[in-house]
Amino acid sequence: MYRPLLTLLLILCITCSTLAQQRYEANWASIDSRPVPAWFEDAKFGIFIHWGLFSVPAFGPTARDSVGVYDRYAEWYWRKSTDSNPKNKTYPIFKRFEERTYGPNHKYQDFVEGFTCDFFKPDDWADVFRQSGAKYVVLTSKHHEGFTLWPSAQAWNWNAADVGPHRDLAGDLIKAVKAKGIRMGYYYSLYEWFNPLYKTDVAGYVDRHMLPQMKDLVTRYQPDIVWTDGEWDHPSETWRSTEFLAWLYNESPVKQDVVVNDRWGKETRGKHGGIFTTEYDLVHDANSEGMAFSRPWEECRGIGSSFGYNRAENLEDYSTSKQLIDILVDKVARGGNLLLNIGPTADGRIPVIMQQRLKDIGDWLTVNGEAIYGTRKWEKSPKVDSKTTLFFTKKGNDLYAICTRWPDAPLTIPGVRKPKRVSLLGYAGNVPVKSSGNGLALTAPTLSPGTIPCQHAWVFKLEGAL
Amino acid sequence: MYRPLLTLLLILCITCSTLAQQRYEANWASIDSRPVPAWFEDAKFGIFIHWGLFSVPAFGPTARDSVGVYDRYAEWYWRKSTDSNPKNKTYPIFKRFEERTYGPNHKYQDFVEGFTCDFFKPDDWADVFRQSGAKYVVLTSKHHEGFTLWPSAQAWNWNAADVGPHRDLAGDLIKAVKAKGIRMGYYYSLYEWFNPLYKTDVAGYVDRHMLPQMKDLVTRYQPDIVWTDGEWDHPSETWRSTEFLAWLYNESPVKQDVVVNDRWGKETRGKHGGIFTTEYDLVHDANSEGMAFSRPWEECRGIGSSFGYNRAENLEDYSTSKQLIDILVDKVARGGNLLLNIGPTADGRIPVIMQQRLKDIGDWLTVNGEAIYGTRKWEKSPKVDSKTTLFFTKKGNDLYAICTRWPDAPLTIPGVRKPKRVSLLGYAGNVPVKSSGNGLALTAPTLSPGTIPCQHAWVFKLEGAL
Amino acid sequence: MYRPLLTLLLILCITCSTLAQQRYEANWASIDSRPVPAWFEDAKFGIFIHWGLFSVPAFGPTARDSVGVYDRYAEWYWRKSTDSNPKNKTYPIFKRFEERTYGPNHKYQDFVEGFTCDFFKPDDWADVFRQSGAKYVVLTSKHHEGFTLWPSAQAWNWNAADVGPHRDLAGDLIKAVKAKGIRMGYYYSLYEWFNPLYKTDVAGYVDRHMLPQMKDLVTRYQPDIVWTDGEWDHPSETWRSTEFLAWLYNESPVKQDVVVNDRWGKETRGKHGGIFTTEYDLVHDANSEGMAFSRPWEECRGIGSSFGYNRAENLEDYSTSKQLIDILVDKVARGGNLLLNIGPTADGRIPVIMQQRLKDIGDWLTVNGEAIYGTRKWEKSPKVDSKTTLFFTKKGNDLYAICTRWPDAPLTIPGVRKPKRVSLLGYAGNVPVKSSGNGLALTAPTLSPGTIPCQHAWVFKLEGAL
Amino acid sequence: MYRPLLTLLLILCITCSTLAQQRYEANWASIDSRPVPAWFEDAKFGIFIHWGLFSVPAFGPTARDSVGVYDRYAEWYWRKSTDSNPKNKTYPIFKRFEERTYGPNHKYQDFVEGFTCDFFKPDDWADVFRQSGAKYVVLTSKHHEGFTLWPSAQAWNWNAADVGPHRDLAGDLIKAVKAKGIRMGYYYSLYEWFNPLYKTDVAGYVDRHMLPQMKDLVTRYQPDIVWTDGEWDHPSETWRSTEFLAWLYNESPVKQDVVVNDRWGKETRGKHGGIFTTEYDLVHDANSEGMAFSRPWEECRGIGSSFGYNRAENLEDYSTSKQLIDILVDKVARGGNLLLNIGPTADGRIPVIMQQRLKDIGDWLTVNGEAIYGTRKWEKSPKVDSKTTLFFTKKGNDLYAICTRWPDAPLTIPGVRKPKRVSLLGYAGNVPVKSSGNGLALTAPTLSPGTIPCQHAWVFKLEGAL
Repeated sequence: MYRPLLTLLLILCITCSTLAQQRYEANWASIDSRPVPAWFEDAKFGIFIHWGLFSVPAFGPTARDSVGVYDRYAEWYWRKSTDSNPKNKTYPIFKRFEERTYGPNHKYQDFVEGFTCDFFKPDDWADVFRQSGAKYVVLTSKHHEGFTLWPSAQAWNWNAADVGPHRDLAGDLIKAVKAKGIRMGYYYSLYEWFNPLYKTDVAGYVDRHMLPQMKDLVTRYQPDIVWTDGEWDHPSETWRSTEFLAWLYNESPVKQDVVVNDRWGKETRGKHGGIFTTEYDLVHDANSEGMAFSRPWEECRGIGSSFGYNRAENLEDYSTSKQLIDILVDKVARGGNLLLNIGPTADGRIPVIMQQRLKDIGDWLTVNGEAIYGTRKWEKSPKVDSKTTLFFTKKGNDLYAICTRWPDAPLTIPGVRKPKRVSLLGYAGNVPVKSSGNGLALTAPTLSPGTIPCQHAWVFKLEGAL
Repeated sequence: MYRPLLTLLLILCITCSTLAQQRYEANWASIDSRPVPAWFEDAKFGIFIHWGLFSVPAFGPTARDSVGVYDRYAEWYWRKSTDSNPKNKTYPIFKRFEERTYGPNHKYQDFVEGFTCDFFKPDDWADVFRQSGAKYVVLTSKHHEGFTLWPSAQAWNWNAADVGPHRDLAGDLIKAVKAKGIRMGYYYSLYEWFNPLYKTDVAGYVDRHMLPQMKDLVTRYQPDIVWTDGEWDHPSETWRSTEFLAWLYNESPVKQDVVVNDRWGKETRGKHGGIFTTEYDLVHDANSEGMAFSRPWEECRGIGSSFGYNRAENLEDYSTSKQLIDILVDKVARGGNLLLNIGPTADGRIPVIMQQRLKDIGDWLTVNGEAIYGTRKWEKSPKVDSKTTLFFTKKGNDLYAICTRWPDAPLTIPGVRKPKRVSLLGYAGNVPVKSSGNGLALTAPTLSPGTIPCQHAWVFKLEGAL
Repeated sequence: MYRPLLTLLLILCITCSTLAQQRYEANWASIDSRPVPAWFEDAKFGIFIHWGLFSVPAFGPTARDSVGVYDRYAEWYWRKSTDSNPKNKTYPIFKRFEERTYGPNHKYQDFVEGFTCDFFKPDDWADVFRQSGAKYVVLTSKHHEGFTLWPSAQAWNWNAADVGPHRDLAGDLIKAVKAKGIRMGYYYSLYEWFNPLYKTDVAGYVDRHMLPQMKDLVTRYQPDIVWTDGEWDHPSETWRSTEFLAWLYNESPVKQDVVVNDRWGKETRGKHGGIFTTEYDLVHDANSEGMAFSRPWEECRGIGSSFGYNRAENLEDYSTSKQLIDILVDKVARGGNLLLNIGPTADGRIPVIMQQRLKDIGDWLTVNGEAIYGTRKWEKSPKVDSKTTLFFTKKGNDLYAICTRWPDAPLTIPGVRKPKRVSLLGYAGNVPVKSSGNGLALTAPTLSPGTIPCQHAWVFKLEGAL
Repeated sequence: MYRPLLTLLLILCITCSTLAQQRYEANWASIDSRPVPAWFEDAKFGIFIHWGLFSVPAFGPTARDSVGVYDRYAEWYWRKSTDSNPKNKTYPIFKRFEERTYGPNHKYQDFVEGFTCDFFKPDDWADVFRQSGAKYVVLTSKHHEGFTLWPSAQAWNWNAADVGPHRDLAGDLIKAVKAKGIRMGYYYSLYEWFNPLYKTDVAGYVDRHMLPQMKDLVTRYQPDIVWTDGEWDHPSETWRSTEFLAWLYNESPVKQDVVVNDRWGKETRGKHGGIFTTEYDLVHDANSEGMAFSRPWEECRGIGSSFGYNRAENLEDYSTSKQLIDILVDKVARGGNLLLNIGPTADGRIPVIMQQRLKDIGDWLTVNGEAIYGTRKWEKSPKVDSKTTLFFTKKGNDLYAICTRWPDAPLTIPGVRKPKRVSLLGYAGNVPVKSSGNGLALTAPTLSPGTIPCQHAWVFKLEGAL
């Protein structure tokens, strides 16, 4: 054997062994060393789905009740309606509703019979997702109530196959969604408010309830995302999070592509895990404005003020399509993803107003998607604040300037070189541009309602400007 | 006393006696001689509400089922799900749903327990109506099912106060709506599909059930509109319609202002009564396109394809705001009103998508209402067909040109004289105009998305053009 | 033709014409002239059935609540639970139950959904009746609630075919009962507590609701008994009772055999109609003890303290078989019948304890029936009071001495002649007898538990003693 | 210190240490060495209660369906209605009922909402038990369905406190029963038909579900009896039965008095544990007739043919009081106890027919209890078979001769000496007796229905005959 071949073989061996050696250990240093799979950062827009027994009362406070946004979560019904602690300011609201609507001797568990899902058509849901332009979907496989949407052996008679709809909701949906070429994963609450095992024996709970459920979910459905929550009571050590993640990254059938978040223990948000998460702009008590995460991140929020469907919400409680597109642009320009939540009904429908919002976003993305998907934050972007109406994203040498207000005056874009071509996405005509003092001055073309390519926000593409 | 004063007194006496003598007789010639109260023709836009036990299954076919629009009425559930006659093509669709969802030995009457109306807040509904720009509301006090939304003595245990929500829905709503300064009336079905009295003794039914109910409704709530339906089985003589109308016009507390429609017997539509009615463009089997009614008229239709709420309808089944505004413009330009229907849910909510559509119409009317309210059809308008995008209305000497597509080319308006002023509603700038061969040539101003006054349709006002 | 034949024909003609002429007029003198059909007085023992929506809550006070027997009627639930008048002492009991069990915003009408009658098997019921020895059955076709157990056109959506079980309970039962050779009829309440027509227009109610219902019942099912009630609000003239009875006696398909009672107006009990009635020994406020009716009469009462099924009743509330047999003997000895009530459950069963009581009576009648059926009161019987344990009935020349306590000492029977034969029913042996001062002295045979023919009461038959 | 005192102290020490050493080991030899506490063998008569979700459908086959007695258990509804295996002959019966009554897409778990227990009054139940003469009560704390009647942490949301009645049924009852001076314990099913943990990991189930539940039951409520069942799938080793029993006998708060049975593993019935059990005369496939157990034993059976309440059972399906007293006599004469079952309803009542049976037994025991309680089998008794009507029990030197048929001829009792006194229980008079060839000849006194002390069975007490 002559030497070059030998060398090649040697290289191959080393490569293979390196790959083979690519084992993660059950500590944060090792776990954190795994890069977030690229598909996630390219995807930018996902749909969150909160569905469970809380979808039966489907009730929560609204803005009219003058309570903060974090107090309007309808999915917290069980906890809020039973916790008379003075710190729970919404107790009277929930309690009054409960008594007037359901009478005495009624408990949250009795909602099971109302969770019929009669109208649930997974293929139709998947169509709605596809048309929205979302690239991934995250469903609550289990919220803090402990009720699972799949036939979990650990939640016998407390899951959607045994009781309620008598159906594997989680399984039926992931099948339909993946068939449309959309990635899908699951939200999973580590803690359960009222599970006696959790309340009396956390270690036993983690060992015999939580970890088996999580592994069952992963091996049974092969989700692209494992989106944990409800981690705040205990450090990640108690949850044995790194142990689970090492298994997920080393052994599980989704080890290549799976994405996880940062909710793995009271100390981990914004520090450890996979992607970092914000929620209505909050990073666990720290406002996200101006944040500069070291990892890909994702903002989650509802279309209304609640994740679980809230029947008390009226139009005034729902963000407009314009607001949602602005939020998407803002998050992407800051380097984040948007995970926009919908709350299906207890009979299995996506409220049509939510379908409308998703379609409007989808229509906008049909024109402007190239400024969103696969882009990255432009590090030289002027600082973004709550009054910003000009955002930037980049892809390769191209820069995208996204206007959330139509620029009636010329736009000045600093710190770029003369682009090869400047265009308005969705518009075939010319976009006048000239060098300005410290960058570029760009004038929007004259367009009428008859020639405008889209509503809500408009994108100028500067090819070769970087 | 000198003569001019005497003459004046004489004239006054004659006038008064004429007014006093203005009694209508129970025949069509006399009934038809009453003019439709002016408020109605000025109002242009009303909201129809179909609510009843059919709101509990809230199910009907959709466009996907490839059935005609008149076969998608969810409020016909009872009739359609029990009529196996081969002419009822939707029987299998309803039957399959019924059996799969409600099981054996279930009857329509069993839906009563699901009609809870827990979330019904009349004041909130009235706010939604006010913001939509609607000037009147029509609620189904009783549909063909015979179930009444008010505590009717004739429908004991088959009304919303005795069973179901245990509440006077009709009374609570009219109070709230009138308090907002909006007119309100009731839909009332003359016939009842399954009422044994109706089926075996029409005369007895009319005498002891129907007429007492109608008079009770009128005297109890003083509605501005009595909107009848379900008249097709019998001639108006059988229903004793002119007798009722003579009472309504001569005796009832609403004799001054009440508006009725033309559904008073199998021979009356488009011929007798008050306003004429169309429904999804049909005038009882004759398409309304090109119609030229001798009286004020009104088109009724849903936002989706059903009047009663249909849970099977998704976004694709709902008209867009743009489509609805186009329909409103089309009807008003033809001299009609639009009575746009909403279908509340069994728990008492207006679906948010319907709130959205109403708000979009209201937003448009905020800018353009003067081209709608109080206007009349322009008799010299070019003929309107399904491709028309330029419509006209008039008020006094002013002409309104309503563009449902933005005019990128100059508009030519024939048969008008040079106006004193031309403006675009909602826009402060100038609108260039010059005389053209046979009328006027008008050029739309150059507007960007940032300066456009509204979406969907735009109105040029030509002051003094008539 | 010779004369005897002619005479015979003449007699036949007269007889026929007399029968044909036997028409009753709509006044009490004429109505009262009709004899009670003989079958009734021979039958002695019937079964009353109270079944309706009240069978769903199936709740009433019991003896423990220290309320009088007339306040323990569970079938009065609707009235008692909604009448807060201080005279209604049971209001708090009903109200507390209602609120605790069914919660707020619940009304009596909501019980409809619980009236399933799933287990109702008419043939099995008929077997139970047959084994009890009863000769007739009376079912509540409609109680004061107005809800009918047959598909009454006048009670649309307030009858068992339209709502609840969706079944013609009255029709199914009469068919099964008659097939076993048992007579059957219906209870029918003239008034309806809450029917608006009744409350506002009694004449209209009688004309268009009550009389059509009663005639429908009679012609549709041909009942042997029409057992009215709820007559106390108005005189019989208001109810048009004699008019109905004239129709019943002259025209109806049951004119030959039908039996009616005396509840036809506030003035009629114990005075007019067919049989006279008592209820828990009361004759409309007059105690029946010592009564001497001019017509056949009937005592009605429950096995427990309620007619409608009362789930709150325990064994202590039920009469024993011994007590019931004593009551039967007492009533028959006084010349009356016993109409013993059972209260089926909402799911269509006869509570087994009631089956047990009926069977015990049937077993006793199997041995002793000849002393009951077809007998008449013995006018020379010593006066009967509450301590009496020796009762008499007669049939032809035979006298029956019924001992409700075993006679350890010789029995003295006054006012009879020496019988041809004396026997103990069910016992083949001899019964020693000898003439006594003013009658007969009879010594019970020596019997052990192994030779005793029956329990509870024993009958000595004195053949030819009258 | 002088010697006698020293000796006494020594003896005391030894005694104490012996008592202290009385520890049972986790093997059958040790466990079996513990004597059954005397109270149990003296008690003779107990009441079994089967109550659970199966009480909601409360349905099973009856004798009319021509299925064997073991196929009429209504508490097996879940298993029988879902097992289409041809060996399950009752599948069609259950399936038909299920579909006709509950419709499609219904599962057993859905019965939870019907388990209201609204009428459950533990004190009243306890009164019924006291009046029956029963000395102990055994309630199903958990049947094979796995649903617990107490708030078991291991059965979260599958117990009566979390769902259904929202009440600690087991706890409320034991408190009331013990307050009446009656012993009480629990039935507990080792296996659970459908528990995924049981089905996939028996060892885990035993370790983390079953044993914790059993210990929780014992420590929380201190039951006098632990009555296991559902043991047949596995040997006692798998269930870790001896380990549990060692804990129960050594450590538990009820170690002194607790009684257990023999259902601890597929090999244990009639061999190991505490008392031996039969069920409808069967000892796990071997007929009990002629059995001669080495330990105290107990027969359990229903009043009807089912343990769980079966609404399909009519009077014909219920044993008569006479039959039940005969069974009690037979079992006690053979050395056993009778554990007679009642099946409460889903709304919390003891069916009155069952109250009646219990009261009749209680009345009989009031007269004859001394021949039952505290007695033992008479070893010299003539062999008992199905035709036997003369049974014996003994207490000290006294013999009791129990006649289940009244002895019209003299009774011959072999193998006894002349008693000091012979009496008929409940009767003050003399009972003639004389020596016969090989024993005693006893003549029943002449009694009439008026002097007989009781029904059903009569007891002659022979004082000093042994």
